[in-house]
Amino acid sequence: MAKFITFGELMLRLAPKGYLRFLQESEFQATFGGGEANVAVSLANYGLDAAFVSKLPVHNIGQAAVNSLRYFGVDTSMIIRGGNRVGIYYLEKGASQRPSKVIYDRSESSIADAVSSDFNWDIIFKDAEWFHFTGITPALGPNVAQICFEAVLAAKKAGLTVSCDLNYRKNLWTSEKAEQTMSQLMEYVDVCIANEEDAEKVFGIKAENTDVTSGKLNYDGYKEVAHKLTNKFKLKYVAITLRTSISANDNKWSAMLYDGVNYHFSKSYDIHIVDRVGGGDSFGAGIIYGLSQKMSASESIEFAVAASCLKQTIEGDFNYVSVQEVKNLMNGNRTGRVQR
Amino acid sequence: MAKFITFGELMLRLAPKGYLRFLQESEFQATFGGGEANVAVSLANYGLDAAFVSKLPVHNIGQAAVNSLRYFGVDTSMIIRGGNRVGIYYLEKGASQRPSKVIYDRSESSIADAVSSDFNWDIIFKDAEWFHFTGITPALGPNVAQICFEAVLAAKKAGLTVSCDLNYRKNLWTSEKAEQTMSQLMEYVDVCIANEEDAEKVFGIKAENTDVTSGKLNYDGYKEVAHKLTNKFKLKYVAITLRTSISANDNKWSAMLYDGVNYHFSKSYDIHIVDRVGGGDSFGAGIIYGLSQKMSASESIEFAVAASCLKQTIEGDFNYVSVQEVKNLMNGNRTGRVQR
Amino acid sequence: MAKFITFGELMLRLAPKGYLRFLQESEFQATFGGGEANVAVSLANYGLDAAFVSKLPVHNIGQAAVNSLRYFGVDTSMIIRGGNRVGIYYLEKGASQRPSKVIYDRSESSIADAVSSDFNWDIIFKDAEWFHFTGITPALGPNVAQICFEAVLAAKKAGLTVSCDLNYRKNLWTSEKAEQTMSQLMEYVDVCIANEEDAEKVFGIKAENTDVTSGKLNYDGYKEVAHKLTNKFKLKYVAITLRTSISANDNKWSAMLYDGVNYHFSKSYDIHIVDRVGGGDSFGAGIIYGLSQKMSASESIEFAVAASCLKQTIEGDFNYVSVQEVKNLMNGNRTGRVQR
Amino acid sequence: MAKFITFGELMLRLAPKGYLRFLQESEFQATFGGGEANVAVSLANYGLDAAFVSKLPVHNIGQAAVNSLRYFGVDTSMIIRGGNRVGIYYLEKGASQRPSKVIYDRSESSIADAVSSDFNWDIIFKDAEWFHFTGITPALGPNVAQICFEAVLAAKKAGLTVSCDLNYRKNLWTSEKAEQTMSQLMEYVDVCIANEEDAEKVFGIKAENTDVTSGKLNYDGYKEVAHKLTNKFKLKYVAITLRTSISANDNKWSAMLYDGVNYHFSKSYDIHIVDRVGGGDSFGAGIIYGLSQKMSASESIEFAVAASCLKQTIEGDFNYVSVQEVKNLMNGNRTGRVQR
Amino acid sequence: MAKFITFGELMLRLAPKGYLRFLQESEFQATFGGGEANVAVSLANYGLDAAFVSKLPVHNIGQAAVNSLRYFGVDTSMIIRGGNRVGIYYLEKGASQRPSKVIYDRSESSIADAVSSDFNWDIIFKDAEWFHFTGITPALGPNVAQICFEAVLAAKKAGLTVSCDLNYRKNLWTSEKAEQTMSQLMEYVDVCIANEEDAEKVFGIKAENTDVTSGKLNYDGYKEVAHKLTNKFKLKYVAITLRTSISANDNKWSAMLYDGVNYHFSKSYDIHIVDRVGGGDSFGAGIIYGLSQKMSASESIEFAVAASCLKQTIEGDFNYVSVQEVKNLMNGNRTGRVQR
Amino acid sequence: MAKFITFGELMLRLAPKGYLRFLQESEFQATFGGGEANVAVSLANYGLDAAFVSKLPVHNIGQAAVNSLRYFGVDTSMIIRGGNRVGIYYLEKGASQRPSKVIYDRSESSIADAVSSDFNWDIIFKDAEWFHFTGITPALGPNVAQICFEAVLAAKKAGLTVSCDLNYRKNLWTSEKAEQTMSQLMEYVDVCIANEEDAEKVFGIKAENTDVTSGKLNYDGYKEVAHKLTNKFKLKYVAITLRTSISANDNKWSAMLYDGVNYHFSKSYDIHIVDRVGGGDSFGAGIIYGLSQKMSASESIEFAVAASCLKQTIEGDFNYVSVQEVKNLMNGNRTGRVQR
Repeated sequence: MAKFITFGELMLRLAPKGYLRFLQESEFQATFGGGEANVAVSLANYGLDAAFVSKLPVHNIGQAAVNSLRYFGVDTSMIIRGGNRVGIYYLEKGASQRPSKVIYDRSESSIADAVSSDFNWDIIFKDAEWFHFTGITPALGPNVAQICFEAVLAAKKAGLTVSCDLNYRKNLWTSEKAEQTMSQLMEYVDVCIANEEDAEKVFGIKAENTDVTSGKLNYDGYKEVAHKLTNKFKLKYVAITLRTSISANDNKWSAMLYDGVNYHFSKSYDIHIVDRVGGGDSFGAGIIYGLSQKMSASESIEFAVAASCLKQTIEGDFNYVSVQEVKNLMNGNRTGRVQR
Repeated sequence: MAKFITFGELMLRLAPKGYLRFLQESEFQATFGGGEANVAVSLANYGLDAAFVSKLPVHNIGQAAVNSLRYFGVDTSMIIRGGNRVGIYYLEKGASQRPSKVIYDRSESSIADAVSSDFNWDIIFKDAEWFHFTGITPALGPNVAQICFEAVLAAKKAGLTVSCDLNYRKNLWTSEKAEQTMSQLMEYVDVCIANEEDAEKVFGIKAENTDVTSGKLNYDGYKEVAHKLTNKFKLKYVAITLRTSISANDNKWSAMLYDGVNYHFSKSYDIHIVDRVGGGDSFGAGIIYGLSQKMSASESIEFAVAASCLKQTIEGDFNYVSVQEVKNLMNGNRTGRVQR
Repeated sequence: MAKFITFGELMLRLAPKGYLRFLQESEFQATFGGGEANVAVSLANYGLDAAFVSKLPVHNIGQAAVNSLRYFGVDTSMIIRGGNRVGIYYLEKGASQRPSKVIYDRSESSIADAVSSDFNWDIIFKDAEWFHFTGITPALGPNVAQICFEAVLAAKKAGLTVSCDLNYRKNLWTSEKAEQTMSQLMEYVDVCIANEEDAEKVFGIKAENTDVTSGKLNYDGYKEVAHKLTNKFKLKYVAITLRTSISANDNKWSAMLYDGVNYHFSKSYDIHIVDRVGGGDSFGAGIIYGLSQKMSASESIEFAVAASCLKQTIEGDFNYVSVQEVKNLMNGNRTGRVQR
Repeated sequence: MAKFITFGELMLRLAPKGYLRFLQESEFQATFGGGEANVAVSLANYGLDAAFVSKLPVHNIGQAAVNSLRYFGVDTSMIIRGGNRVGIYYLEKGASQRPSKVIYDRSESSIADAVSSDFNWDIIFKDAEWFHFTGITPALGPNVAQICFEAVLAAKKAGLTVSCDLNYRKNLWTSEKAEQTMSQLMEYVDVCIANEEDAEKVFGIKAENTDVTSGKLNYDGYKEVAHKLTNKFKLKYVAITLRTSISANDNKWSAMLYDGVNYHFSKSYDIHIVDRVGGGDSFGAGIIYGLSQKMSASESIEFAVAASCLKQTIEGDFNYVSVQEVKNLMNGNRTGRVQR
Repeated sequence: MAKFITFGELMLRLAPKGYLRFLQESEFQATFGGGEANVAVSLANYGLDAAFVSKLPVHNIGQAAVNSLRYFGVDTSMIIRGGNRVGIYYLEKGASQRPSKVIYDRSESSIADAVSSDFNWDIIFKDAEWFHFTGITPALGPNVAQICFEAVLAAKKAGLTVSCDLNYRKNLWTSEKAEQTMSQLMEYVDVCIANEEDAEKVFGIKAENTDVTSGKLNYDGYKEVAHKLTNKFKLKYVAITLRTSISANDNKWSAMLYDGVNYHFSKSYDIHIVDRVGGGDSFGAGIIYGLSQKMSASESIEFAVAASCLKQTIEGDFNYVSVQEVKNLMNGNRTGRVQR
Repeated sequence: MAKFITFGELMLRLAPKGYLRFLQESEFQATFGGGEANVAVSLANYGLDAAFVSKLPVHNIGQAAVNSLRYFGVDTSMIIRGGNRVGIYYLEKGASQRPSKVIYDRSESSIADAVSSDFNWDIIFKDAEWFHFTGITPALGPNVAQICFEAVLAAKKAGLTVSCDLNYRKNLWTSEKAEQTMSQLMEYVDVCIANEEDAEKVFGIKAENTDVTSGKLNYDGYKEVAHKLTNKFKLKYVAITLRTSISANDNKWSAMLYDGVNYHFSKSYDIHIVDRVGGGDSFGAGIIYGLSQKMSASESIEFAVAASCLKQTIEGDFNYVSVQEVKNLMNGNRTGRVQR
């Protein structure tokens, strides 16, 4: 059985090539992705024993989804096969002042229609040490929220560390609904991961004097957010990504890790973006790697930010990087010179 | 307002390139298609004033579907915009002994969720002369079957000719359910189009001594099928396609038109197939063109078979051919010599 | 009949993929474009009733050109079919210090060979409110210049607003020839659209102390240019785009609208360019949209600049954007954050 | 200077991928081809010292045309650079009963606008032994016909063998015009190459009882055609290809060589066609190779037919085969087993 | 540990698209393949627990090779990582009379440079039931032949069934060298798989009166071959594929299984080929599946032939089919009708 | 015989499309490149008579390599055909903070296995005026180093100017080995070309206080490097490129030419990189062009830097630019405005 378990939805991602708009394309790049699956792929790429738990249809599109994870050595043996469809998201890549656009077509997917009896968490968590999920999964429906609840309960019982990426999605639920559900789940969470907007959208905890769409960040505000989250939910760690969007092509990227005592801010990267989708997930995987491998808090946040910086230079949801590549970057080799 | 009205679902068709299997592809050819929309495109290509009626989402994938028809000059002004999703079908092209494979992902599409009040048939049929639908559309759900019923009622009231392609789909409904619904609708139909299996699957009317999977056809049997259908539903015409599948690449293709008196068999074509999906729809459009343009029964069936022979040499659901091209073929130029 | 009429040439655009040079490519991206057709597409995308008038061959390449406009709902019913060829332009996309390159192969195209009797402007302009053309069209030959003259005459007679984008093309005619012809046509124009070089090249009216190749613009100079143009031709509006080319990838982009009283300068955008061809046309369409929809002068220029900023983030000549997308940008959402 | 000189037009060939129709494609495969250039490429591939003479524009598209020949080692140093355009032909590949379609856009090309003074044939033919042209070249216009006349005159004076492929093109000239011009040129020709229709279309010499569109050939008739051609023009050799078109995908292919005494019929090949364009040119090149390399008449015709059989299994105008590959096929290895 | 172990080389396969020749392509389809790896993929697709043993470099190309197998769930944990290169084969697909062409570039690959101490066969074979290799592997060099020898010795000791596909490759070794090495290895083999040429090339055992390049097979001759092989090496089963090559596109395909008593001939398939490479490997995997899953001899040979028929309709070395798909075909559904 | 001779290896370059990583791609862009071949292509593009000398296999991949040079008019008649393989390098393009990655697979290539007797330098250098090689070539093995030694000896004897680009490759040899071999060869060199690291890596001559990975350059240090090199080897010219890597996408680029008296620094370019591989080679070709065409030292360095700036905006190893395009840039037109 695997050590690192993630649970959520794996979707088919359909994207026009390059910067083409939806109305221009007669061909879709077809890959797979989803918050928790992306984390599992990162962890497998780092050499950890990672499994992804979900439900996917028996048919060939479902099989293609499963195989996309097996490619990286992710353990897919605990994915339940059944239900009717693989959820889809259509992605149009933005450029300059034109934002990227996501159209979700994920309702009635196999995992969204799953029931509690599909998963036996005691077996799943046998020998495991870490459980990770995101705020997207309970948002798929009350049945899935209930499964999440059963999962975190079992995880704590089995002594696992539990991490959750808040990942608020306004088209899946309202802030009110999110707060209600997530508040319950957070009772069992040790490590909370969030971006610069999530805490406000889900719990109304916000960094004062910061307008994320304006390109300015108030660093003190994020200390306060982390502090309040920690107090509210007895968290061990809060990790927050700090993105400053210059344009669809250029972003500044850094993060902060609060360990209950100190606030560790990472270096900041000026990223010329190839694909920012999955950036947050690769950050979460970096935090999980750092903390589970006993890096210090400050090493952990540098590892996570460097890893997610690299992700944003790579097409697709998955982060095709090794531990060595992340360490090369976090240790200062940022100029992109050719490696022969 | 348009003269020729078709009603049904327009789906996104996602197909791996060439003969690649679903598990081999990281790119999908994205086109649009669907029984009645395919007919509308054919009619527009023949210079007729054709409209397609349906319901499609407001978002960009819905818009791409609409535009795919506007490209041919199909009138899309009566497509209702709303609902949540564009239905999808995944298509894997077979070769030799390996069959083509279709995976449907069409539940909860905008048209499947449509309601009666979405369509005002009296306005839609103003100035129109022909209404066409297929057996797929009522199979989308009782609500859509009800809309179909309202449509044929209004069509007859407005004096239109009504044609229906039986098009039985076993994954949408059972034979029992199909018979029950279709029997009611057929009361209002003038022209019935079917392939070599439909009449049996929907109405239990079958050509004796014929096994469509064996590659042998019993021509007398099909006369009997047409005769029985006509008697049962007071039809003016019954058109049946006769496909003999040698392999996924090679099919024999001919058809029969029964006008209540005579059985008109067409020439037979040995088709080296490029894409057989939409073959039946292009045949239906050929029948509608022939009969509406006052061709004789025997010219009509030759036109329809030649048109659908050409369709099967063309990628995608739509039949990109002109009246002149169909006539060239039906008049004997079958050897495919280069036209400079 | 349509409300907004544009007249000109629609060309086949053949472009190597990405940044490949002509000598590297064995495949051309084949799209269609041309100054006035690009404007018609923009207006149709904004929900206006737009028609494109031209002449195109009967053959399939001509048909593909027509269909490329029908896709957007542009009215193509007034395009005359005949003549021998679709004009072509080959486009190689530049990068960094390497400029984009255009090779024209448009002589003897159907529209270049058109004659006056091909077009009945009284019928074309029935119920219309706006006529738009560019300086490229009369440059195609004296016959086409004559047709333009007949068009503007008829347009004024029918009470339309007439707009003209100067669009000087040195490989089609000389400055002398341009001035002679354009001076006559401008007598009938209400709205003159130009880029930072056109007025000088066509009418010898120039912004002092500005070298457009140096990357520096003299804003006061452009006020003077607009003022002189207005005086010379009794124009209602002069709109001038102001491009500062940092490199083939990065441009600053803003514009000015002079309403005869005030000079309205827009915000400036730092564009990371995807495809700058058609930028001027999308600007012209923005001006036409703003003025015809009764936006204020300052709103109009902001709309036009935001629209053309977005165009430059999109491949091809056409501007695939909606009114809402333009308004989102002009109202300040410039950071390109993902829209889910 | 080269030993084998060919003279004619090299065109840009724009073809949708696979079996897509013109209206389906947003990408053209861009290669180059033309009767005489195709022959030059074949001869260079056979290791002969071949040159192509023509006129092409200075710009990059002209350069790409030149380089496409240099790739094979064809001597392009005698191509005149100037004029305005590279001629184009659009090619849509047929399938089964749907014929391939060619749209020419070659008027006003550089070679069509060439003048006699562009070419100094005495210098071009220095050290040469063979001159080849086709009936397409004089059909480009009276100026080019005149250049052809000067070329054959100089060729005979310099003691070269002259070969001509009749290659009648009905969209370039009428049969009357063709006969008038070609009759004059044929006086200087030693080797006449033709397909099963050319002799009739150009000289009214026809094989009785043969309908090339019916798929039946009258072999005796072709003997008569060759005999009449030889008598009329004092030819040394007449080579005629015999194509039986089963469908756009499947053709039978053989040929006959008449040496003034005997009629040598080749083996016949059942070709599953990849691309038949250039089939005749590769046949002509095979004849030239065989006769110039002192093969017997019967070896020559087998070589030519095998070479052109292989061409039709290869995409594009050019025949990418070696002498060894042709000999392998003509010596009986026809079953296409893998060569490891 | 896995039940089914295969051992050999996994190569990078570089192939131009479609029917393009090597000299036409600027893009290679990059997949992976190799005799024994292809068998492992088939077995994994049939739901068996299969492992592939080999040596591959640490770098990313080596990793891509490993991942290509993990995608199917093949156990890659016993692949040794080290050495310098991934072997390559270039593949050009033939058409009609033009044969496919393979250029090997596999010397100095990691597996070709492997040493005995790289593999601990006792551990590898723990819990296993079947070991499979081909005649290609010992041909890679004496060191690899030695490893093979150690493997079969250990396999027999551990009680595994051993199968070997003779697979003679003339560019790797001579018939003399092959006979010498293979004779030793065959002592430990239970199931011998061969094509219609191998037995002759390796052991000089040949079917009289058969010329495989002529398209005629002598069935009695193959009985004799199987009988002689069995006698010589105490084999339990001999399976021979019988290919009749009509052209590069069309082959007849059947096979025979000799169980020491009876000769079981399969049905014959007329295959319209998509990609015949890997056809023999998919046949071998079919035999292993059939025999290991306790099918009868005659069911086993039908399963193997149907499986390999399907493979030849699929691009690439790997056979992307399920047990159900193979059974559908072997049970008679050969006409390739669409499966919806 | 050609005037400009270059000698080295031409490799097959296999690169995933765009910014895809090795593990993401199932298709490789296949082009050819190599230090000295890249120089030959540049010189041919500038209109000079350039030849490339090497050894390449007889098979089709070898032929494709040869033809890739013939395309530009490079003289390939002195390339020896033989040996077993075309060397390969795999290239993954970096982005932002992710560096480009090169995996070499070039051992045992035809040129690496060449012997002295393969090349007759006296014949090769007949009528030549310049010989160029790089430090990569002698690093291929002692046999190739010996051939280089024979070449420079013959070159000097024949009165040619000899240029060498140091081009240190740490995966081919050590600094010690490099110094030993290169010191001998440099005795015959007139023009030494190097990048900002080479002199240190090969000869231990370094610019003090400069850390090339830090993005800061010490210009005085490079004067010293050039001076020391000149003194050590009696060089006529030393040309050093100065790259400041901001990220994988953005580099500053300039250079210095030392003529033994003065240090000529070029303008600096801010390059938004398309493909930096081959940048140094295009610089070397620029220096050779400038000096051989009697430009002044300062013009030569400006030409070389402008040429190599343009190269980095072009995909592939080869520099597809003309003398005119380079001069346009060096004379100040740097803003990348469209050229119509």
